[in-house]
Amino acid sequence: MVDTDRWLLPEGIEELLPPEAERLERVRRRLLELYRTWGYRQVIPPFIEYLDSLLTGAGNDLDLETFKLTDQLSGRLMGVRADMTPQVARIDASQLQREEPTRLCYLGTVLRTRPASHGGTRSPMQVGVELYGHAGPESDREVLALMVETLLEAGLGRVYLDLGHVGIFRGLARRAGLDADTENRLFDALQRKAKPEITEILATAELEKTAADALLALADLNGGPEILEEAREALAGAGDEVNAALDNLRRVAGAVGQRAEVSVHFDLAELRGYHYHTGVVFAAFVPGRGQAIAQGGRYDGIARVFGRDRPATGFSADLREVLSLASDDSGPIRGIFAPCADDAALDAAIAELRRNGERVVQALPGQQGAAADMDCDRQLAEREGRWQVEGL
Amino acid sequence: MVDTDRWLLPEGIEELLPPEAERLERVRRRLLELYRTWGYRQVIPPFIEYLDSLLTGAGNDLDLETFKLTDQLSGRLMGVRADMTPQVARIDASQLQREEPTRLCYLGTVLRTRPASHGGTRSPMQVGVELYGHAGPESDREVLALMVETLLEAGLGRVYLDLGHVGIFRGLARRAGLDADTENRLFDALQRKAKPEITEILATAELEKTAADALLALADLNGGPEILEEAREALAGAGDEVNAALDNLRRVAGAVGQRAEVSVHFDLAELRGYHYHTGVVFAAFVPGRGQAIAQGGRYDGIARVFGRDRPATGFSADLREVLSLASDDSGPIRGIFAPCADDAALDAAIAELRRNGERVVQALPGQQGAAADMDCDRQLAEREGRWQVEGL
Repeated sequence: MVDTDRWLLPEGIEELLPPEAERLERVRRRLLELYRTWGYRQVIPPFIEYLDSLLTGAGNDLDLETFKLTDQLSGRLMGVRADMTPQVARIDASQLQREEPTRLCYLGTVLRTRPASHGGTRSPMQVGVELYGHAGPESDREVLALMVETLLEAGLGRVYLDLGHVGIFRGLARRAGLDADTENRLFDALQRKAKPEITEILATAELEKTAADALLALADLNGGPEILEEAREALAGAGDEVNAALDNLRRVAGAVGQRAEVSVHFDLAELRGYHYHTGVVFAAFVPGRGQAIAQGGRYDGIARVFGRDRPATGFSADLREVLSLASDDSGPIRGIFAPCADDAALDAAIAELRRNGERVVQALPGQQGAAADMDCDRQLAEREGRWQVEGL
Repeated sequence: MVDTDRWLLPEGIEELLPPEAERLERVRRRLLELYRTWGYRQVIPPFIEYLDSLLTGAGNDLDLETFKLTDQLSGRLMGVRADMTPQVARIDASQLQREEPTRLCYLGTVLRTRPASHGGTRSPMQVGVELYGHAGPESDREVLALMVETLLEAGLGRVYLDLGHVGIFRGLARRAGLDADTENRLFDALQRKAKPEITEILATAELEKTAADALLALADLNGGPEILEEAREALAGAGDEVNAALDNLRRVAGAVGQRAEVSVHFDLAELRGYHYHTGVVFAAFVPGRGQAIAQGGRYDGIARVFGRDRPATGFSADLREVLSLASDDSGPIRGIFAPCADDAALDAAIAELRRNGERVVQALPGQQGAAADMDCDRQLAEREGRWQVEGL
């Protein structure tokens, strides 16, 4: 007797069997093909790197999530990639070193020591794009549009977008002259839209009324496209930085909400990745699921530690998770069952069918299972001296 | 100033940039498509597993090559896969549990603590197939043929095959009644074809003359298909086990050597993987390179530890290494450079081109680099009110 529990996988570590593995492969192809047609070049970052490459700068937050390994050849500490974004930034900065805008895409497994949420995966299949070397809203808009295309191509029927801009809160906080501690507490309360708490923090900080009103207004500035107009009035006196951020957000959102499959929601208090993002931030959701299924935004400082301080914007998603929420358009597997015989004409017929993309499963002498058990819906049979495909 | 050496990768760990990454992706697609048409279903084994799953049975030899990690959730030791073959055997045995012959294929990165040879990789891209549940020469022949197709599809112009069968030496050793120590020393000397040493070992063992002659003959039994006939004479009295092995080898080799791109070499003293292989063994070589670029064979015991003692045959290769030796048939990258404008007709023209598989790179306001710098050979321009593709 064998204890099958012995072969259980670690929590949050998954393997894919057919047909799920094949479905993932098909969507993988479609996405990489999508990125190619948009001008994004593929990179394959290494699975492990020296820890200081992985955790420098942008990767700093990843320390606890990163599996550590000792390199027996150098004695140095290595890490298994927990996020490919910093790797791609390193590749742009220190390997490609181009002056032109550079569009890169990537897809691969990352590992995390702990799942992001209870019962979540520790081995996401991360897919994403990065656009380096351009700071205007046009590049953010392109990346946002490509994130939407990605989700639709993967089979999601509807995409709910959440858009914000860290420059709005940052500009208001700066203008109000908030100290770091107050800014952090206010940031926290805003994320939870806890208005009584916000009011209290603002009162204690003894701010000028216009500044306090603007910060308080943020908690309510979420909704459809009309929010941008409301914000322009509510934050009228908030200064150039805030106005520029609002204008940037409007231009990035552009026409993305005009697609029938896309709902756009603005949330000016949305500060996802506030500590490293430098402009617009966006995320995609599906109903009934609290966590974003794809997210991105502007992240201009990402490559600074790699010696290249140039603008960057991008998005990423866990492809396996997206597929778990998407409709599966793969039909049943089909195939032709061929007999086993020492017959050159049979071999030629099989080779020809395979060249034409048909799946041909050849019988093995004495095998168990008939055509249907081998996932075949047709068979190859000799009729009047010719090998022909026929129904079962 | 930035110390770029700081971002060097660990020895034997590689990253792929465009166009190499894209070339690998194209060949990956072609290979998985090839396996699909031959009836092989894709599996994606996990990147990490509990160490006892990875190193049980077939994986035993991999202990030193396997990176170890502590699972913070369970406290148990995990390993990073160093070989996907035992994982696929586990999947067949404990997950799929089919009675019919089962054909599986896989492709993915594995990691090794040490390179197989000086300057070699520690992160091969392993590709391979396994066929479980059939013990006859037909399944070995299919797997061997698919190994050849794999190498040709990847771009190798010529494949040099080396075929052997562990049953020949095993049968001779058993019949001669060699003790374990003598068998091991003889095995060693045969690998090196060190005839004086072989003669000495055989003399010391005081074997019967027929048995000693047969074992000595092995060292010379290598060459073209004629070797199988020579062996039948030289090993005429060697018993049923040896005769059956020779017959099996002849049937597995079948017609594979009749292809113009394939040279077949038999080596009856070839004992690659002698300790775990149970039948035919084969490997592919390219001139000027000592190590095999693909290898496989029959390995019936592989899933025994997973509670399923069924026959198995398969092959695997490092796809990155194969590609480094193969001709690159990818042409130059092409593309259409499109201007940036707030123009719905332009957006529609770009979307249409992309849907048709064209690579369209849209300019970003104020960007450095013209069309050619963005790897484009054409451009999208408005002529008489219509957006049209034209040469640069």
